[in-house]
Amino acid sequence: MLANIWQNLKNKRPIVHCITNYVTVNDCANILLAGGAAPIMADDIGEVEDITAICSGLYINIGTLNERTIASMTAAGRKANSLSHPVILDPVGAGASPLRTHTVSLLLENILFSAIRGNMSEIKAIVQGNGSTRGVDAEVNDMVTEENIGNAVSFARSLSKKTNAVIAISGAIDIISSGDKTYLVRNGHPLMARITGTGCMLTALMAACCAANPDRILDAAATAACAVGISGELAYEKMQQNDVGISSYRTYFLDAIEKINGEILERRSQIEGC
Amino acid sequence: MLANIWQNLKNKRPIVHCITNYVTVNDCANILLAGGAAPIMADDIGEVEDITAICSGLYINIGTLNERTIASMTAAGRKANSLSHPVILDPVGAGASPLRTHTVSLLLENILFSAIRGNMSEIKAIVQGNGSTRGVDAEVNDMVTEENIGNAVSFARSLSKKTNAVIAISGAIDIISSGDKTYLVRNGHPLMARITGTGCMLTALMAACCAANPDRILDAAATAACAVGISGELAYEKMQQNDVGISSYRTYFLDAIEKINGEILERRSQIEGC
Amino acid sequence: MLANIWQNLKNKRPIVHCITNYVTVNDCANILLAGGAAPIMADDIGEVEDITAICSGLYINIGTLNERTIASMTAAGRKANSLSHPVILDPVGAGASPLRTHTVSLLLENILFSAIRGNMSEIKAIVQGNGSTRGVDAEVNDMVTEENIGNAVSFARSLSKKTNAVIAISGAIDIISSGDKTYLVRNGHPLMARITGTGCMLTALMAACCAANPDRILDAAATAACAVGISGELAYEKMQQNDVGISSYRTYFLDAIEKINGEILERRSQIEGC
Repeated sequence: MLANIWQNLKNKRPIVHCITNYVTVNDCANILLAGGAAPIMADDIGEVEDITAICSGLYINIGTLNERTIASMTAAGRKANSLSHPVILDPVGAGASPLRTHTVSLLLENILFSAIRGNMSEIKAIVQGNGSTRGVDAEVNDMVTEENIGNAVSFARSLSKKTNAVIAISGAIDIISSGDKTYLVRNGHPLMARITGTGCMLTALMAACCAANPDRILDAAATAACAVGISGELAYEKMQQNDVGISSYRTYFLDAIEKINGEILERRSQIEGC
Repeated sequence: MLANIWQNLKNKRPIVHCITNYVTVNDCANILLAGGAAPIMADDIGEVEDITAICSGLYINIGTLNERTIASMTAAGRKANSLSHPVILDPVGAGASPLRTHTVSLLLENILFSAIRGNMSEIKAIVQGNGSTRGVDAEVNDMVTEENIGNAVSFARSLSKKTNAVIAISGAIDIISSGDKTYLVRNGHPLMARITGTGCMLTALMAACCAANPDRILDAAATAACAVGISGELAYEKMQQNDVGISSYRTYFLDAIEKINGEILERRSQIEGC
Repeated sequence: MLANIWQNLKNKRPIVHCITNYVTVNDCANILLAGGAAPIMADDIGEVEDITAICSGLYINIGTLNERTIASMTAAGRKANSLSHPVILDPVGAGASPLRTHTVSLLLENILFSAIRGNMSEIKAIVQGNGSTRGVDAEVNDMVTEENIGNAVSFARSLSKKTNAVIAISGAIDIISSGDKTYLVRNGHPLMARITGTGCMLTALMAACCAANPDRILDAAATAACAVGISGELAYEKMQQNDVGISSYRTYFLDAIEKINGEILERRSQIEGC
């Protein structure tokens, strides 16, 4: 499954329209290129529908949302829906302010998302309409562990059924659920939380995998989670070898994304269906 | 002093609300994470007060200011003041345009800053209402040297008393003054001026140190200056070892920030009180 | 020629005013610093004329244009024209949306550009008023090869005469034409297309070379193309030595820009006049 999804990404080289935050936008562009896709960033209401029309997937990230870009997200999302392009949401910081939480509600009312990826605090805020989000990181109480994984999976399944979107909850254990089927991914490394943008990059790569595999959204999202997690592990190994630090880790992470192939995915992935 | 301030940063892991420029925003996020803090960037008037309320410090940087974000800076600053959160200003390019100089005046009228950090040209522009700023770098005439250090310290003291803010003037010799007490820091390396963002990153790290040490703003600002200067030196040593160049230097700089600890700070800092 | 242009850049250290996209803005700032110039980013209508006035060149890039910044581009460009500063355009994604194509027309009506650099799809869109741009990359049909180079050169010459701007078309073979004289540059490496920002960075460096050599725009643009192409080759060699990947390649690319000197330019450049 993983190798096939990845090969489609490499073969189709989809263009992904990104309306994303200005903090990690460069990282998102680079992970799309490293994965074999192509990014185009465009957020003006005067062009977002035209840009979406020439792409094969749309990535919406509310990390630095503002009044102007919220309107652009809605317009682009509706257009992408009308063209049956996969639309992927990263609700960065949902729960951290009413504006973010309300914007997520507004987007969910207007757009059918193929997949939504966030940490547990952000995903909970979608349901609860408020949250305890620690800035853009998950609350300690929201960490998914082997002990509470059952409840977390039930929650993801339920939200997936409610939204008709694949729900991806990132953490030490990633949960990716379509309601009927759920994957757990245990790849990754704690250092990934010590650089900005790993979450945004993962969602961007999911958008690319979905754009290249529009009929297999769940598998595409899970493949992106494996690729990112494995790259986080490979980067750690390289960092140790070279006696360097956290910023070099970030470089090696993107190096690894570009080197990932079907064989590496199948060999190193720690994924189980349930 | 230095080790204690740094340990508080590591222990408290403060969330810092950043309203900053889109040029170096990713670097600012990464230095906060490398230092042990957590960033959240938010600049829409509809959420800046809510975001500031869940953080423990506010960092305002005018590097790519615009009409929309100036209003957000003012609202966030007032809110942070009402909550007694440290508010730190980086007046990037003050003196380079009337808009920047006037905006600094507007912010100073509306917000009580805990600390203000810039190069000498920028800090002079705050006082004079105009300046000879060479873009975003200090004018040659404004360089602080061993010869003119006395005048520079007097100037910093005077401005600190006038603004009730710690004044940090960066250069070959950093001056950090609370009016009553002044530190001189002689760490750093000339290559730091050859990559974008070292000034912005220093101010962001100051904001984090102040957020973790709100009752010791002068010491917190001086500790950040030492940590950044020492990291600039360590990065240079690593660059020489590995026979690479300026962009690798930048990577090693952030690597070093994450490795800094109390022992390194105490051993390598070149700081004197006066 | 190359060594002389480069030496002027190093000696004059021009400040370049950049109104550019938020995706690669940090890369543009860093290439300007690596080349010996200094960047200042400013896009608010309330300051762009003042900022342009203290610089010696203006770089306009429409990569993430919006209504607010289009007005700023126009105002800054007119001001730069009135001061006889070189103004350089990067029409990112022209042809990908009517907004981009129309904005390029608007800018061409209001501003006299010294040079315009893009890939063939973008440059064609300037002439045709629409295009087949693959996002922000060139269409396969638009690739310049040894077979179609004659037609491509004729096209560049013709557009240069029409616009009074040096036309630079980037690809495996770079074409840089002033109408009367044309350079072909065969430096570079295919990996340059696998990281975001190489096009934007090239145009930024062209702006710096033009700002330092305002009476030799064609030679300045060609020198920037050689410097960027050679750095792409040097980065590839370093990447191979160190057994790393695409993100390290990007670091080594900027490392190389900073190490380029007249001797390297003259020895490694593959440039011919025609």
